[in-house]
Amino acid sequence: MEPIDSLRYAHTSPAEVRKLIRAGKIDYFTSGMSQGYAQANLVILPKDLAYDFLLFTQRNPKSCPVLEVSDVGSRTLKHIAKDADIAKDLPKYRVYRYGVLEGEYTDVEQFWQDDFVSFLIGCSFSFESEMLEAGLSVRHIEENKNVPMYITNIDCVEAGIFKGKTVVSMRPLPHKDIVKAVTVTGAMPKVHGTPIHIGDPAAIGIRDLSRPDFGDAVTIKDGEVPVFWCCGVTPQSVVMNVKPPLVITHAPGHMFITDVKNVQLKD
Amino acid sequence: MEPIDSLRYAHTSPAEVRKLIRAGKIDYFTSGMSQGYAQANLVILPKDLAYDFLLFTQRNPKSCPVLEVSDVGSRTLKHIAKDADIAKDLPKYRVYRYGVLEGEYTDVEQFWQDDFVSFLIGCSFSFESEMLEAGLSVRHIEENKNVPMYITNIDCVEAGIFKGKTVVSMRPLPHKDIVKAVTVTGAMPKVHGTPIHIGDPAAIGIRDLSRPDFGDAVTIKDGEVPVFWCCGVTPQSVVMNVKPPLVITHAPGHMFITDVKNVQLKD
Repeated sequence: MEPIDSLRYAHTSPAEVRKLIRAGKIDYFTSGMSQGYAQANLVILPKDLAYDFLLFTQRNPKSCPVLEVSDVGSRTLKHIAKDADIAKDLPKYRVYRYGVLEGEYTDVEQFWQDDFVSFLIGCSFSFESEMLEAGLSVRHIEENKNVPMYITNIDCVEAGIFKGKTVVSMRPLPHKDIVKAVTVTGAMPKVHGTPIHIGDPAAIGIRDLSRPDFGDAVTIKDGEVPVFWCCGVTPQSVVMNVKPPLVITHAPGHMFITDVKNVQLKD
Repeated sequence: MEPIDSLRYAHTSPAEVRKLIRAGKIDYFTSGMSQGYAQANLVILPKDLAYDFLLFTQRNPKSCPVLEVSDVGSRTLKHIAKDADIAKDLPKYRVYRYGVLEGEYTDVEQFWQDDFVSFLIGCSFSFESEMLEAGLSVRHIEENKNVPMYITNIDCVEAGIFKGKTVVSMRPLPHKDIVKAVTVTGAMPKVHGTPIHIGDPAAIGIRDLSRPDFGDAVTIKDGEVPVFWCCGVTPQSVVMNVKPPLVITHAPGHMFITDVKNVQLKD
Protein backbone atom coordinates (compact mmCIF):
# COMPACT_ATOMS: atom_id res chain seq x y z
CA MET A 1 0.00 0.00 0.00
CA GLU A 2 1.13 3.56 -0.74
CA PRO A 3 2.14 5.87 2.11
CA ILE A 4 -0.57 8.25 3.35
CA ASP A 5 0.23 11.35 1.41
CA SER A 6 -2.89 12.92 -0.04
CA LEU A 7 -1.05 16.01 -1.26
CA ARG A 8 0.84 13.78 -3.64
CA TYR A 9 -2.43 13.74 -5.61
CA ALA A 10 -3.20 17.46 -5.25
CA HIS A 11 -2.82 18.01 -8.98
CA THR A 12 -4.00 14.62 -10.21
CA SER A 13 -7.30 14.66 -12.11
CA PRO A 14 -10.42 13.29 -10.38
CA ALA A 15 -10.73 10.53 -13.01
CA GLU A 16 -7.14 9.43 -12.38
CA VAL A 17 -7.55 9.48 -8.58
CA ARG A 18 -10.77 7.46 -8.84
CA LYS A 19 -8.91 4.95 -11.02
CA LEU A 20 -6.17 4.60 -8.37
CA ILE A 21 -8.81 4.17 -5.67
CA ARG A 22 -10.64 1.56 -7.74
CA ALA A 23 -7.39 -0.33 -8.24
CA GLY A 24 -6.85 -0.39 -4.47
CA LYS A 25 -3.81 1.92 -4.61
CA ILE A 26 -5.42 4.64 -2.44
CA ASP A 27 -7.43 3.75 0.69
CA TYR A 28 -6.95 6.88 2.82
CA PHE A 29 -8.41 10.40 3.38
CA THR A 30 -9.22 12.28 0.18
CA SER A 31 -8.76 15.78 1.58
CA GLY A 32 -6.23 17.66 -0.49
CA MET A 33 -6.61 15.40 -3.54
CA SER A 34 -7.56 16.84 -6.95
CA GLN A 35 -7.52 20.36 -5.59
CA GLY A 36 -10.22 22.64 -6.92
CA TYR A 37 -12.67 19.78 -7.49
CA ALA A 38 -15.73 19.17 -5.34
CA GLN A 39 -15.83 16.12 -3.09
CA ALA A 40 -19.10 14.54 -2.03
CA ASN A 41 -20.69 12.66 0.85
CA LEU A 42 -22.34 9.36 -0.07
CA VAL A 43 -25.52 7.74 1.23
CA ILE A 44 -26.76 4.55 -0.45
CA LEU A 45 -30.28 3.40 0.44
CA PRO A 46 -32.73 0.84 -0.94
CA LYS A 47 -35.43 2.31 -3.19
CA ASP A 48 -38.22 1.87 -0.63
CA LEU A 49 -36.55 4.50 1.57
CA ALA A 50 -35.39 6.72 -1.27
CA TYR A 51 -38.58 8.75 -1.73
CA ASP A 52 -38.72 9.85 1.90
CA PHE A 53 -35.00 10.59 1.88
CA LEU A 54 -35.18 12.59 -1.36
CA LEU A 55 -38.09 14.55 0.10
CA PHE A 56 -36.02 15.11 3.26
CA THR A 57 -33.24 16.63 1.16
CA GLN A 58 -35.77 18.82 -0.68
CA ARG A 59 -37.15 20.09 2.63
CA ASN A 60 -33.72 20.61 4.20
CA PRO A 61 -31.61 21.96 1.35
CA LYS A 62 -29.03 23.69 3.54
CA SER A 63 -28.22 20.48 5.41
CA CYS A 64 -28.61 18.19 2.40
CA PRO A 65 -27.40 19.90 -0.77
CA VAL A 66 -27.82 17.08 -3.28
CA LEU A 67 -25.31 17.10 -6.14
CA GLU A 68 -26.70 13.97 -7.81
CA VAL A 69 -29.07 11.08 -7.22
CA SER A 70 -28.28 7.91 -9.17
CA ASP A 71 -30.81 5.95 -11.13
CA VAL A 72 -32.18 2.95 -9.24
CA GLY A 73 -29.65 0.11 -9.21
CA SER A 74 -27.08 2.07 -11.19
CA ARG A 75 -23.44 2.15 -10.07
CA THR A 76 -22.61 4.96 -12.49
CA LEU A 77 -23.39 8.65 -12.40
CA LYS A 78 -24.50 10.89 -15.24
CA HIS A 79 -23.67 14.42 -14.20
CA ILE A 80 -20.97 14.97 -11.61
CA ALA A 81 -18.54 12.23 -12.72
CA LYS A 82 -17.85 10.31 -15.91
CA ASP A 83 -17.16 6.56 -15.90
CA ALA A 84 -17.37 6.35 -12.12
CA ASP A 85 -18.19 3.17 -10.21
CA ILE A 86 -19.99 4.14 -7.02
CA ALA A 87 -19.30 0.72 -5.49
CA LYS A 88 -15.53 1.03 -5.90
CA ASP A 89 -14.45 4.66 -6.33
CA LEU A 90 -14.42 5.75 -2.70
CA PRO A 91 -11.38 4.76 -0.66
CA LYS A 92 -13.43 3.54 2.28
CA TYR A 93 -17.10 2.73 2.87
CA ARG A 94 -19.15 1.98 5.94
CA VAL A 95 -21.86 -0.66 5.92
CA TYR A 96 -24.62 -0.31 8.51
CA ARG A 97 -27.29 -2.91 9.25
CA TYR A 98 -30.23 -1.75 11.38
CA GLY A 99 -28.18 1.30 12.39
CA VAL A 100 -25.20 -0.74 13.60
CA LEU A 101 -21.82 -0.40 11.89
CA GLU A 102 -21.03 -3.81 10.45
CA GLY A 103 -17.67 -2.89 9.02
CA GLU A 104 -15.52 -0.71 6.79
CA TYR A 105 -14.69 -1.83 3.25
CA THR A 106 -12.65 -0.47 0.37
CA ASP A 107 -15.17 -1.88 -2.11
CA VAL A 108 -18.89 -2.60 -1.65
CA GLU A 109 -19.56 -4.58 -4.82
CA GLN A 110 -20.35 -7.67 -2.72
CA PHE A 111 -23.21 -5.80 -1.00
CA TRP A 112 -24.70 -4.25 -4.13
CA GLN A 113 -28.48 -4.56 -4.66
CA ASP A 114 -30.55 -3.84 -7.73
CA ASP A 115 -32.76 -1.52 -5.69
CA PHE A 116 -29.94 0.73 -4.40
CA VAL A 117 -30.14 4.48 -4.90
CA SER A 118 -27.01 6.59 -4.30
CA PHE A 119 -27.21 10.14 -2.99
CA LEU A 120 -24.13 12.32 -3.54
CA ILE A 121 -24.32 15.28 -1.20
CA GLY A 122 -22.22 18.45 -1.27
CA CYS A 123 -19.42 18.79 1.26
CA SER A 124 -17.96 21.75 3.13
CA PHE A 125 -14.52 21.08 1.63
CA SER A 126 -15.84 23.04 -1.35
CA PHE A 127 -16.73 26.21 0.50
CA GLU A 128 -13.65 26.04 2.68
CA SER A 129 -11.52 26.14 -0.43
CA GLU A 130 -13.41 29.29 -1.48
CA MET A 131 -12.98 30.80 2.01
CA LEU A 132 -9.23 30.26 1.83
CA GLU A 133 -9.14 31.81 -1.66
CA ALA A 134 -10.97 34.84 -0.24
CA GLY A 135 -8.35 35.22 2.50
CA LEU A 136 -10.52 33.94 5.35
CA SER A 137 -9.01 31.69 7.98
CA VAL A 138 -10.30 28.15 8.43
CA ARG A 139 -9.15 27.27 11.94
CA HIS A 140 -9.35 23.46 11.84
CA ILE A 141 -7.26 23.43 8.67
CA GLU A 142 -4.69 25.73 10.33
CA GLU A 143 -4.64 23.38 13.32
CA ASN A 144 -4.65 20.24 11.18
CA LYS A 145 -7.81 18.90 12.83
CA ASN A 146 -11.24 17.69 11.76
CA VAL A 147 -13.90 20.43 11.78
CA PRO A 148 -15.86 20.61 15.08
CA MET A 149 -19.50 19.55 14.68
CA TYR A 150 -22.39 19.97 17.11
CA ILE A 151 -25.92 18.62 17.42
CA THR A 152 -28.22 21.65 17.74
CA ASN A 153 -31.77 22.05 19.03
CA ILE A 154 -32.91 23.00 15.51
CA ASP A 155 -35.37 20.45 14.17
CA CYS A 156 -34.96 19.37 10.58
CA VAL A 157 -38.17 19.48 8.59
CA GLU A 158 -39.53 15.92 8.76
CA ALA A 159 -40.17 13.83 5.66
CA GLY A 160 -41.86 10.48 6.09
CA ILE A 161 -39.79 8.38 8.49
CA PHE A 162 -36.82 10.78 8.45
CA LYS A 163 -36.51 13.35 11.21
CA GLY A 164 -33.94 14.65 13.66
CA LYS A 165 -31.91 17.62 14.80
CA THR A 166 -29.69 19.71 12.55
CA VAL A 167 -25.96 19.09 12.92
CA VAL A 168 -23.74 22.12 12.32
CA SER A 169 -20.06 22.67 11.73
CA MET A 170 -18.31 25.66 13.35
CA ARG A 171 -15.53 27.96 12.16
CA PRO A 172 -14.45 30.86 14.40
CA LEU A 173 -13.88 34.20 12.65
CA PRO A 174 -12.97 37.73 13.69
CA HIS A 175 -15.83 40.24 13.45
CA LYS A 176 -14.28 41.92 10.42
CA ASP A 177 -14.49 38.70 8.38
CA ILE A 178 -18.02 37.60 9.17
CA VAL A 179 -19.81 39.45 6.39
CA LYS A 180 -17.30 38.16 3.87
CA ALA A 181 -17.81 34.61 5.14
CA VAL A 182 -21.57 35.00 4.62
CA THR A 183 -21.23 36.28 1.07
CA VAL A 184 -18.50 33.81 0.02
CA THR A 185 -20.39 30.76 1.28
CA GLY A 186 -23.78 32.22 0.29
CA ALA A 187 -22.57 32.11 -3.31
CA MET A 188 -22.40 28.32 -2.99
CA PRO A 189 -25.92 27.13 -2.09
CA LYS A 190 -25.09 23.66 -3.47
CA VAL A 191 -22.61 23.15 -0.64
CA HIS A 192 -24.58 24.33 2.43
CA GLY A 193 -24.64 28.05 1.47
CA THR A 194 -24.86 30.80 4.08
CA PRO A 195 -24.29 30.14 7.79
CA ILE A 196 -27.35 29.08 9.77
CA HIS A 197 -26.23 30.93 12.90
CA ILE A 198 -23.64 33.50 13.98
CA GLY A 199 -22.59 33.98 17.60
CA ASP A 200 -24.10 32.70 20.87
CA PRO A 201 -23.94 28.87 20.74
CA ALA A 202 -26.56 28.56 23.49
CA ALA A 203 -29.16 30.11 21.18
CA ILE A 204 -29.07 26.93 19.08
CA GLY A 205 -28.70 24.54 21.99
CA ILE A 206 -24.92 24.11 22.05
CA ARG A 207 -23.65 24.05 25.65
CA ASP A 208 -19.89 23.84 25.29
CA LEU A 209 -17.89 24.62 22.15
CA SER A 210 -14.90 22.82 23.61
CA ARG A 211 -16.82 19.54 23.51
CA PRO A 212 -18.06 18.95 19.95
CA ASP A 213 -20.33 15.97 19.27
CA PHE A 214 -18.19 14.99 16.25
CA GLY A 215 -14.76 16.09 15.07
CA ASP A 216 -12.26 18.07 17.12
CA ALA A 217 -12.44 21.23 19.24
CA VAL A 218 -10.52 24.17 17.79
CA THR A 219 -9.02 27.33 19.30
CA ILE A 220 -11.31 30.37 19.47
CA LYS A 221 -9.20 33.48 19.86
CA ASP A 222 -10.15 36.66 21.73
CA GLY A 223 -12.54 38.74 19.68
CA GLU A 224 -13.55 35.84 17.45
CA VAL A 225 -17.15 34.81 16.90
CA PRO A 226 -18.26 31.21 16.27
CA VAL A 227 -19.99 30.88 12.90
CA PHE A 228 -22.17 27.82 12.23
CA TRP A 229 -23.05 26.13 8.94
CA CYS A 230 -25.44 23.24 8.30
CA CYS A 231 -23.41 20.08 8.07
CA GLY A 232 -23.51 17.05 5.78
CA VAL A 233 -23.47 14.83 8.86
CA THR A 234 -27.14 15.79 9.32
CA PRO A 235 -28.53 13.49 6.60
CA GLN A 236 -26.33 10.57 7.72
CA SER A 237 -27.36 11.02 11.33
CA VAL A 238 -31.02 11.20 10.33
CA VAL A 239 -30.71 8.00 8.29
CA MET A 240 -29.04 6.20 11.20
CA ASN A 241 -31.91 7.22 13.52
CA VAL A 242 -34.24 5.19 11.32
CA LYS A 243 -32.05 2.07 11.60
CA PRO A 244 -32.76 0.74 8.09
CA PRO A 245 -31.89 -2.90 7.28
CA LEU A 246 -28.97 -1.84 5.09
CA VAL A 247 -27.27 1.50 4.41
CA ILE A 248 -23.87 2.19 2.91
CA THR A 249 -22.06 5.51 3.37
CA HIS A 250 -18.56 6.85 2.82
CA ALA A 251 -16.24 6.48 5.81
CA PRO A 252 -15.61 9.93 7.35
CA GLY A 253 -13.06 11.84 5.29
CA HIS A 254 -13.04 9.21 2.54
CA MET A 255 -15.12 11.11 0.00
CA PHE A 256 -16.19 10.71 -3.59
CA ILE A 257 -14.13 13.03 -5.83
CA THR A 258 -16.30 14.56 -8.56
CA ASP A 259 -15.37 16.01 -11.95
CA VAL A 260 -17.07 19.27 -10.95
CA LYS A 261 -14.91 22.21 -9.95
CA ASN A 262 -15.82 24.01 -6.76
CA VAL A 263 -16.24 27.24 -8.72
CA GLN A 264 -18.85 25.49 -10.89
CA LEU A 265 -20.99 25.06 -7.77
CA LYS A 266 -21.47 28.83 -7.74
CA ASP A 267 -24.56 28.82 -9.87
CA MET B 1 -70.74 34.97 -9.05
CA GLU B 2 -68.53 38.03 -8.60
CA PRO B 3 -67.36 40.00 -11.64
CA ILE B 4 -63.86 39.19 -12.91
CA ASP B 5 -61.81 41.86 -11.22
CA SER B 6 -58.64 40.43 -9.74
CA LEU B 7 -57.25 43.83 -8.80
CA ARG B 8 -60.08 44.17 -6.34
CA TYR B 9 -58.08 41.66 -4.26
CA ALA B 10 -54.65 43.24 -4.85
CA HIS B 11 -54.31 44.15 -1.19
CA THR B 12 -56.27 41.27 0.31
CA SER B 13 -54.18 38.77 2.31
CA PRO B 14 -53.47 35.35 0.80
CA ALA B 15 -55.40 33.64 3.62
CA GLU B 16 -58.45 35.80 2.95
CA VAL B 17 -58.30 35.23 -0.83
CA ARG B 18 -57.97 31.46 -0.31
CA LYS B 19 -61.04 31.62 1.95
CA LEU B 20 -63.04 33.40 -0.74
CA ILE B 21 -61.89 30.85 -3.33
CA ARG B 22 -62.81 27.97 -1.02
CA ALA B 23 -66.26 29.49 -0.50
CA GLY B 24 -66.75 29.63 -4.27
CA LYS B 25 -66.73 33.45 -4.41
CA ILE B 26 -63.65 33.63 -6.70
CA ASP B 27 -63.28 31.28 -9.68
CA TYR B 28 -61.13 33.36 -12.03
CA PHE B 29 -57.48 34.25 -12.80
CA THR B 30 -55.37 34.96 -9.70
CA SER B 31 -52.91 37.31 -11.36
CA GLY B 32 -52.84 40.62 -9.50
CA MET B 33 -54.31 39.17 -6.29
CA SER B 34 -52.47 39.51 -2.95
CA GLN B 35 -49.73 41.56 -4.57
CA GLY B 36 -46.24 40.85 -3.31
CA TYR B 37 -47.03 37.23 -2.45
CA ALA B 38 -45.77 34.25 -4.45
CA GLN B 39 -48.21 32.19 -6.48
CA ALA B 40 -47.56 28.57 -7.31
CA ASN B 41 -48.21 25.97 -9.99
CA LEU B 42 -49.82 22.73 -8.78
CA VAL B 43 -49.26 19.13 -9.87
CA ILE B 44 -51.01 16.36 -7.91
CA LEU B 45 -49.84 12.80 -8.60
CA PRO B 46 -50.36 9.41 -6.97
CA LYS B 47 -47.49 8.29 -4.72
CA ASP B 48 -46.25 5.61 -7.15
CA LEU B 49 -45.23 8.37 -9.59
CA ALA B 50 -44.06 10.82 -6.94
CA TYR B 51 -40.50 9.51 -6.53
CA ASP B 52 -39.67 9.80 -10.21
CA PHE B 53 -41.30 13.21 -10.38
CA LEU B 54 -39.49 14.49 -7.28
CA LEU B 55 -36.23 13.24 -8.78
CA PHE B 56 -37.13 15.00 -12.03
CA THR B 57 -37.52 18.29 -10.14
CA GLN B 58 -34.19 17.71 -8.39
CA ARG B 59 -32.46 17.12 -11.72
CA ASN B 60 -34.15 20.07 -13.45
CA PRO B 61 -34.24 22.76 -10.77
CA LYS B 62 -34.49 25.71 -13.15
CA SER B 63 -37.60 24.30 -14.83
CA CYS B 64 -39.09 22.83 -11.65
CA PRO B 65 -38.34 25.05 -8.65
CA VAL B 66 -40.24 23.19 -5.94
CA LEU B 67 -41.65 25.41 -3.18
CA GLU B 68 -43.26 22.55 -1.24
CA VAL B 69 -44.17 18.88 -1.54
CA SER B 70 -47.10 17.77 0.59
CA ASP B 71 -47.08 14.70 2.78
CA VAL B 72 -48.73 11.69 1.15
CA GLY B 73 -52.51 12.03 1.22
CA SER B 74 -52.42 15.38 2.97
CA ARG B 75 -54.58 18.25 1.73
CA THR B 76 -52.75 20.76 3.91
CA LEU B 77 -49.33 22.36 3.59
CA LYS B 78 -46.77 22.99 6.30
CA HIS B 79 -44.49 25.68 4.99
CA ILE B 80 -45.76 28.00 2.28
CA ALA B 81 -49.35 28.38 3.49
CA LYS B 82 -51.20 28.01 6.76
CA ASP B 83 -54.62 26.33 7.01
CA ALA B 84 -54.79 25.77 3.26
CA ASP B 85 -56.90 23.07 1.60
CA ILE B 86 -55.16 21.98 -1.58
CA ALA B 87 -58.36 20.39 -2.89
CA LYS B 88 -60.35 23.63 -2.64
CA ASP B 89 -58.09 26.68 -2.50
CA LEU B 90 -57.36 27.09 -6.19
CA PRO B 91 -60.04 28.81 -8.27
CA LYS B 92 -59.88 26.22 -11.04
CA TYR B 93 -58.35 22.76 -11.44
CA ARG B 94 -57.84 20.46 -14.38
CA VAL B 95 -58.34 16.71 -14.07
CA TYR B 96 -56.48 14.54 -16.57
CA ARG B 97 -56.98 10.79 -17.03
CA TYR B 98 -54.37 8.99 -19.13
CA GLY B 99 -53.19 12.38 -20.42
CA VAL B 100 -56.65 13.46 -21.59
CA LEU B 101 -58.36 16.48 -20.04
CA GLU B 102 -61.51 15.18 -18.38
CA GLY B 103 -62.73 18.53 -17.14
CA GLU B 104 -62.20 21.70 -15.16
CA TYR B 105 -63.45 21.94 -11.59
CA THR B 106 -63.49 24.59 -8.87
CA ASP B 107 -63.04 21.90 -6.21
CA VAL B 108 -61.39 18.47 -6.49
CA GLU B 109 -62.46 16.98 -3.17
CA GLN B 110 -64.53 14.36 -5.02
CA PHE B 111 -61.38 13.06 -6.76
CA TRP B 112 -59.14 13.00 -3.70
CA GLN B 113 -57.11 9.84 -3.03
CA ASP B 114 -55.18 8.83 0.06
CA ASP B 115 -52.06 8.32 -2.05
CA PHE B 116 -52.01 11.82 -3.60
CA VAL B 117 -48.86 13.93 -3.36
CA SER B 118 -49.08 17.64 -4.22
CA PHE B 119 -46.18 19.53 -5.75
CA LEU B 120 -46.27 23.31 -5.47
CA ILE B 121 -43.87 24.79 -8.01
CA GLY B 122 -42.61 28.37 -8.22
CA CYS B 123 -44.08 30.62 -10.88
CA SER B 124 -42.66 33.43 -13.00
CA PHE B 125 -45.22 35.89 -11.59
CA SER B 126 -42.76 36.21 -8.68
CA PHE B 127 -39.75 37.26 -10.71
CA GLU B 128 -41.84 39.47 -13.00
CA SER B 129 -42.91 41.43 -9.96
CA GLU B 130 -39.23 41.89 -9.07
CA MET B 131 -38.41 42.89 -12.68
CA LEU B 132 -41.08 45.58 -12.59
CA GLU B 133 -39.76 46.82 -9.23
CA ALA B 134 -36.30 47.06 -10.80
CA GLY B 135 -37.66 49.21 -13.63
CA LEU B 136 -37.49 46.50 -16.31
CA SER B 137 -40.31 46.20 -18.82
CA VAL B 138 -42.37 43.02 -19.00
CA ARG B 139 -43.89 43.18 -22.45
CA HIS B 140 -46.79 40.74 -22.08
CA ILE B 141 -47.97 42.62 -18.98
CA GLU B 142 -47.75 45.93 -20.89
CA GLU B 143 -49.75 44.36 -23.71
CA ASN B 144 -52.18 42.63 -21.34
CA LYS B 145 -51.40 39.19 -22.79
CA ASN B 146 -50.28 35.80 -21.53
CA VAL B 147 -46.49 35.29 -21.64
CA PRO B 148 -45.29 33.61 -24.89
CA MET B 149 -43.94 30.10 -24.29
CA TYR B 150 -41.96 27.87 -26.65
CA ILE B 151 -40.92 24.22 -26.74
CA THR B 152 -37.14 24.16 -27.20
CA ASN B 153 -34.71 21.47 -28.40
CA ILE B 154 -33.14 21.38 -24.91
CA ASP B 155 -33.65 17.98 -23.31
CA CYS B 156 -34.63 17.90 -19.67
CA VAL B 157 -32.53 15.54 -17.58
CA GLU B 158 -34.56 12.31 -17.46
CA ALA B 159 -35.74 10.78 -14.19
CA GLY B 160 -37.42 7.39 -14.33
CA ILE B 161 -40.41 7.64 -16.64
CA PHE B 162 -40.30 11.42 -16.88
CA LYS B 163 -38.54 13.02 -19.82
CA GLY B 164 -39.13 15.68 -22.44
CA LYS B 165 -38.03 19.01 -23.86
CA THR B 166 -37.61 22.19 -21.84
CA VAL B 167 -40.35 24.77 -22.29
CA VAL B 168 -39.25 28.40 -21.98
CA SER B 169 -41.00 31.72 -21.56
CA MET B 170 -39.72 34.78 -23.43
CA ARG B 171 -39.52 38.45 -22.52
CA PRO B 172 -37.94 40.91 -24.99
CA LEU B 173 -35.56 43.48 -23.49
CA PRO B 174 -33.32 46.26 -24.83
CA HIS B 175 -29.59 45.48 -24.67
CA LYS B 176 -29.06 47.93 -21.83
CA ASP B 177 -31.43 45.99 -19.56
CA ILE B 178 -30.20 42.44 -20.14
CA VAL B 179 -27.55 42.30 -17.43
CA LYS B 180 -29.99 43.71 -14.91
CA ALA B 181 -32.58 41.10 -15.92
CA VAL B 182 -30.00 38.36 -15.30
CA THR B 183 -29.04 39.64 -11.86
CA VAL B 184 -32.61 40.43 -10.72
CA THR B 185 -33.96 37.00 -11.71
CA GLY B 186 -30.73 35.23 -10.70
CA ALA B 187 -31.39 36.38 -7.15
CA MET B 188 -34.55 34.23 -7.21
CA PRO B 189 -33.42 30.64 -7.88
CA LYS B 190 -36.64 29.35 -6.29
CA VAL B 191 -38.63 30.82 -9.17
CA HIS B 192 -36.62 29.75 -12.24
CA GLY B 193 -33.59 31.99 -11.55
CA THR B 194 -31.35 33.26 -14.35
CA PRO B 195 -32.35 33.06 -18.02
CA ILE B 196 -31.43 29.85 -19.82
CA HIS B 197 -30.74 31.64 -23.12
CA ILE B 198 -30.29 35.17 -24.45
CA GLY B 199 -30.68 36.04 -28.14
CA ASP B 200 -30.91 33.83 -31.25
CA PRO B 201 -34.05 31.70 -30.85
CA ALA B 202 -32.83 29.22 -33.48
CA ALA B 203 -29.94 28.24 -31.20
CA ILE B 204 -32.46 26.54 -28.88
CA GLY B 205 -34.71 25.21 -31.63
CA ILE B 206 -37.32 27.97 -31.78
CA ARG B 207 -38.28 28.70 -35.40
CA ASP B 208 -40.67 31.60 -35.16
CA LEU B 209 -41.12 33.88 -32.15
CA SER B 210 -44.42 35.11 -33.58
CA ARG B 211 -45.88 31.60 -33.19
CA PRO B 212 -45.48 30.52 -29.55
CA ASP B 213 -46.46 26.98 -28.58
CA PHE B 214 -48.40 28.30 -25.59
CA GLY B 215 -49.57 31.79 -24.61
CA ASP B 216 -49.56 34.84 -26.87
CA ALA B 217 -47.02 36.43 -29.20
CA VAL B 218 -45.77 39.83 -28.02
CA THR B 219 -44.19 42.81 -29.79
CA ILE B 220 -40.41 42.77 -30.12
CA LYS B 221 -39.21 46.29 -30.80
CA ASP B 222 -36.18 47.33 -32.86
CA GLY B 223 -33.00 46.79 -30.88
CA GLU B 224 -34.63 44.40 -28.42
CA VAL B 225 -33.26 40.94 -27.68
CA PRO B 226 -35.44 37.94 -26.75
CA VAL B 227 -34.53 36.61 -23.30
CA PHE B 228 -35.66 33.07 -22.35
CA TRP B 229 -36.34 31.57 -18.93
CA CYS B 230 -37.19 28.00 -18.00
CA CYS B 231 -40.92 27.73 -17.61
CA GLY B 232 -43.18 26.00 -15.10
CA VAL B 233 -45.10 24.49 -18.03
CA THR B 234 -42.13 22.09 -18.44
CA PRO B 235 -43.04 19.79 -15.52
CA GLN B 236 -46.72 19.74 -16.49
CA SER B 237 -45.89 18.93 -20.09
CA VAL B 238 -43.51 16.18 -18.98
CA VAL B 239 -46.18 14.65 -16.73
CA MET B 240 -48.72 14.71 -19.56
CA ASN B 241 -46.27 12.88 -21.85
CA VAL B 242 -46.41 9.95 -19.43
CA LYS B 243 -50.23 9.83 -19.54
CA PRO B 244 -50.73 8.70 -15.94
CA PRO B 245 -54.13 7.27 -14.91
CA LEU B 246 -54.97 10.40 -12.90
CA VAL B 247 -53.29 13.79 -12.52
CA ILE B 248 -54.72 17.02 -11.20
CA THR B 249 -53.19 20.43 -11.97
CA HIS B 250 -54.20 24.06 -11.62
CA ALA B 251 -55.99 25.48 -14.67
CA PRO B 252 -53.67 27.93 -16.46
CA GLY B 253 -53.58 31.28 -14.63
CA HIS B 254 -55.61 29.90 -11.69
CA MET B 255 -52.76 29.55 -9.23
CA PHE B 256 -52.31 28.71 -5.58
CA ILE B 257 -51.61 31.90 -3.59
CA THR B 258 -49.00 31.28 -0.89
CA ASP B 259 -48.28 33.12 2.36
CA VAL B 260 -44.69 33.63 1.19
CA LYS B 261 -43.68 37.06 -0.08
CA ASN B 262 -41.79 37.19 -3.36
CA VAL B 263 -38.90 38.92 -1.60
CA GLN B 264 -38.66 35.93 0.76
CA LEU B 265 -37.82 33.77 -2.25
CA LYS B 266 -34.51 35.62 -2.53
CA ASP B 267 -32.59 33.29 -0.30
